Amino acid sequence: MEKLGSDLFLMENEIPWERIDDKLSRQIVGYNNDIMMVKVKFKEGGIGPVHDHIHSQVTYVVSGAFEMFIDGETRIIRGGDSFYIPPHVSHGAVCIEEGMLIDVFSPHREDFLED
Amino acid sequence: MEKLGSDLFLMENEIPWERIDDKLSRQIVGYNNDIMMVKVKFKEGGIGPVHDHIHSQVTYVVSGAFEMFIDGETRIIRGGDSFYIPPHVSHGAVCIEEGMLIDVFSPHREDFLED
Repeated sequence: MEKLGSDLFLMENEIPWERIDDKLSRQIVGYNNDIMMVKVKFKEGGIGPVHDHIHSQVTYVVSGAFEMFIDGETRIIRGGDSFYIPPHVSHGAVCIEEGMLIDVFSPHREDFLED
Repeated sequence: MEKLGSDLFLMENEIPWERIDDKLSRQIVGYNNDIMMVKVKFKEGGIGPVHDHIHSQVTYVVSGAFEMFIDGETRIIRGGDSFYIPPHVSHGAVCIEEGMLIDVFSPHREDFLED
């Protein structure tokens, strides 16, 4: 497998935001083959559809409020909260107040680099 | 190796903060064997001494300002910025304005769970 590695310093204003849809955009920041950090901005009503993947995921809520579904349970999470998604576990989010999530995956999301 | 896994929902006000020293405290949030997220609060003047480890690391600056040293280069980083630390690469931080970092490691930090 190709050995990957992002820049070491990843300044907010030097990295482009990718549009995912009308209400979501993302900025891929630090990564190598084993880990990848992705900032995801949501506008109110933005949806991360329920899905699952082989990756382990941890996420920090920087701001906003989200109705978060994980493995059959739904809770409201806000700035300061976080969550953990084991491999293959279903999860999805609906943004109820504009905000941002910091998603981190292991291994990295190859699919995000193919775009 | 023991198979680890944190809770799925990790609410800010339900998890204890561990004191590291007078100026640093941390909250270990989501993790399994492959990944671990740790929130680290710094008061002004707080120091993360220069060190290195086998883990890949990605970090997001939630707030504050830090003089960040990575692999021979020092830059000032602020809320919204992030950085990537490859395995075995020296890094350290000095907090110049009170704030918080979100550190994420792969694999998880066994040493943090032994305390």
